Amino acid sequence: MNPTFLAALRAALPANSLLLEAEALRPYECDGLSAYKQIPLAVCLPETLEQAQAILRVCREHQVPVVARGAGTGLSGGALPLADGVILSLARFNKILRIDADNRLAVVQPGVRNLAISEAVAHLGLYYAPDPSSQIACSIGGNVAENSGGVHCLKYGLTVHNLLALKVLTIDGELLDIGLQAFDSPGYDLLALMTGSEGLLGIVVEVTVKLLVKPERAQVVLAAFASVETAGAAVAKIIGAGLLPAGLEMMDNLSIRAAEDFVHAGYPVDAAAILLCELDGANAEVSEQILALRAVLLDAGATEVRTAEDDAQRLKFWAGRKGAFPAVGRISPDYYCMDGTIPRQHLARVLGRIGELSTQYGLRVANVFHAGDGNLHPLILFDANQPDELHRAEAFGTDILKLCVEVGGTVTGEHGIGVEKLDAACSQFTPEELIQFHAIKAAFDPDGLLNPGKAVPTLHRCAEMGRMHVHGGALPFPDLPRF
Amino acid sequence: MNPTFLAALRAALPANSLLLEAEALRPYECDGLSAYKQIPLAVCLPETLEQAQAILRVCREHQVPVVARGAGTGLSGGALPLADGVILSLARFNKILRIDADNRLAVVQPGVRNLAISEAVAHLGLYYAPDPSSQIACSIGGNVAENSGGVHCLKYGLTVHNLLALKVLTIDGELLDIGLQAFDSPGYDLLALMTGSEGLLGIVVEVTVKLLVKPERAQVVLAAFASVETAGAAVAKIIGAGLLPAGLEMMDNLSIRAAEDFVHAGYPVDAAAILLCELDGANAEVSEQILALRAVLLDAGATEVRTAEDDAQRLKFWAGRKGAFPAVGRISPDYYCMDGTIPRQHLARVLGRIGELSTQYGLRVANVFHAGDGNLHPLILFDANQPDELHRAEAFGTDILKLCVEVGGTVTGEHGIGVEKLDAACSQFTPEELIQFHAIKAAFDPDGLLNPGKAVPTLHRCAEMGRMHVHGGALPFPDLPRF
Repeated sequence: MNPTFLAALRAALPANSLLLEAEALRPYECDGLSAYKQIPLAVCLPETLEQAQAILRVCREHQVPVVARGAGTGLSGGALPLADGVILSLARFNKILRIDADNRLAVVQPGVRNLAISEAVAHLGLYYAPDPSSQIACSIGGNVAENSGGVHCLKYGLTVHNLLALKVLTIDGELLDIGLQAFDSPGYDLLALMTGSEGLLGIVVEVTVKLLVKPERAQVVLAAFASVETAGAAVAKIIGAGLLPAGLEMMDNLSIRAAEDFVHAGYPVDAAAILLCELDGANAEVSEQILALRAVLLDAGATEVRTAEDDAQRLKFWAGRKGAFPAVGRISPDYYCMDGTIPRQHLARVLGRIGELSTQYGLRVANVFHAGDGNLHPLILFDANQPDELHRAEAFGTDILKLCVEVGGTVTGEHGIGVEKLDAACSQFTPEELIQFHAIKAAFDPDGLLNPGKAVPTLHRCAEMGRMHVHGGALPFPDLPRF
Repeated sequence: MNPTFLAALRAALPANSLLLEAEALRPYECDGLSAYKQIPLAVCLPETLEQAQAILRVCREHQVPVVARGAGTGLSGGALPLADGVILSLARFNKILRIDADNRLAVVQPGVRNLAISEAVAHLGLYYAPDPSSQIACSIGGNVAENSGGVHCLKYGLTVHNLLALKVLTIDGELLDIGLQAFDSPGYDLLALMTGSEGLLGIVVEVTVKLLVKPERAQVVLAAFASVETAGAAVAKIIGAGLLPAGLEMMDNLSIRAAEDFVHAGYPVDAAAILLCELDGANAEVSEQILALRAVLLDAGATEVRTAEDDAQRLKFWAGRKGAFPAVGRISPDYYCMDGTIPRQHLARVLGRIGELSTQYGLRVANVFHAGDGNLHPLILFDANQPDELHRAEAFGTDILKLCVEVGGTVTGEHGIGVEKLDAACSQFTPEELIQFHAIKAAFDPDGLLNPGKAVPTLHRCAEMGRMHVHGGALPFPDLPRF
């Protein structure tokens, strides 16, 4: 490491906030996408805003890349270190600063865990809605960076829909106050732009979240189907009927059997697919909606429709869904979890095609996913010890993502692009769109020091992927900044 | 006009799509902010995407500014022409392209009127939620540019919350496809960035809006209060109690009397203030909420609480509110309509202070506004024929906007910044924030040709306003692009 840079970092931080030894750096070598690993130059653990600002100024001055890190639970490698960069961990920004029940908001630091917010306001009858499956561990700052979803985002929205304001540091260490407690905010909408930008535009140092009133009642309906296509079509019919479930999840036969063996949720193990549909709200409203939902499900060809008899059964139904990933882990040495999103009306078609691809690649696939918002999570089962199986699983996964784009969907649902999906993102965007993205990046970070090489593929990379028209060896836009 | 430029425009457009004569240009000299007027160089009325692209390319090539215009109902001068620029009218982009009831969306061209969307889907039991008071006339493209709100945006959100996708032309005439029908969208969130950007970043040429299912029932409760402060405090209590009204409007005594004289809505004319609170949803749910609402209102000190007895009375209650602006127009030769937003909890304090300012300036003020989302519309009454009254009204208005910013609110609610509030925006933003805004503008429009001089004040202007620290006569950031 450049000794001037090191001296400047040491001057900016107390000794216990700067990790430099290989052993101390090891835990930071990857996030939840553990296939990619890299030891960083250093890890900074600031405790104050001034320290975070100082780190950014030192890095900018020495042109050293900065990768922000929350709880490290991300699944697309967004927090993967760079060999020549520092990790800026927000782990010590872990305080809930203010709870305002009257205005139903909480002001928290980015290192606060997602679930800790709901726990802190539970006594007020309030909660924070977005519930990624990692919510026990993941931090709200990471949720903002990835625009995280969860089971309940169909009704309550993604992270971006549950934010009121952000404080963000630019690469220069300048503080931007984004969004306001007032309803509308003037100027360009930086709140949404920053949300989901995967650490490429700024460092989130404070988050004001919306709190919701806990619904009076929640109830789950389980419906069984004789084919995944019928189940997929039923999802579109539920939404088309004007119902807005709090959660609408689908599992196919392989997942049902695996979950039942593991959790004993009481699922119908012979069904080709089940839907789990949660309705919440005022007591009377939920009762009315259950009647309407049952009618739609039967009309859509459900072979069985069961309403949970009590809260214990409701939680059991959910336990099966929540245990589905580890349950699949029990029946296969390895699995590869995909994450793509499609318009709901194409669910039946895409599920049918995934079945065909499964036969073609000779690999089983378990489908467990957020059906209501079209967010697929096909789990491709393979054995890494068998020659060629990992390779086939990856090719299968790439085909699924291409299929998502073909039907008007996206290569990522709630896991972000990170490093994992840079190639897939080349199918997603036109060169004009990528140019616009890079121009926005440059508007915030002219030297490309914030999490470079993630989230937005370069035009070069897409050209190499054959996803762009290249004439006479020259890129169509050769004069572009490259990150 | 430069003859080469004129020839290029003529080549790009059919003769009846290009207006050049003073008489033909006159109707375009202003939008709803008629205090500002300017005849443009030319008005272009493209009918096809290719024509719109050609206009932009010609303007970019000849470095001629472009001001997009929808229905011209904007209230902050966002569509005010430039003497050396062209107006790009989207009036002929007026088709509803697709209605998809199953997925509850409509794809429309930007010149389609707001209300026309709801009318076109009414037979399906659907509607488009944002309802600016100009909804009979205003176009959806203008709504996107201004991120318009309306009475129902407290529950159903602003325009940005009711969009799924946009097609946008860049200043180069390139088409950007922004947002998707799928739930999440990868890459930076340009949908929100574009919404409310007042024509400075691109030209919206297609809009995909969300449609909602019409609620089974809507009911209005009217509550009277002995002071505006008590009424303001009641608003925070309603929201704090977990109620989410579809609309929550407030009128003070002057507005009540004016509206009652004009519309005979049956308002209590001795009340210092009334709240109109609409609840909608399933039948049973609305009944439960009305009980809860009445309890909160009485607890908050309401002197009278009336639930509309039938739909006729409900509509009468609303007729008074909707007729309030013309009603105030009957009791004063002129009025100046302000638009600012504050956090709800400060309503009582801000209303008290507006009362004091009214005495100080010797001008009456009528308060009629979207109380639920803290969006104030103080109407300052004056007589333009009396020396100094306009001047005092403007100073009074400026003080109100400063007050909004002081309590953590904004200088604009739903009317945008345009040209009207450029100075006020200087109190809103820090230099760092303005620099970031100008950098984003440059990322889309490097030559500053799209609606220059609107929405985001230059650093120079803010420095002249004394709202920025200027050391030794030099701006803190002298190397910035200026628009």
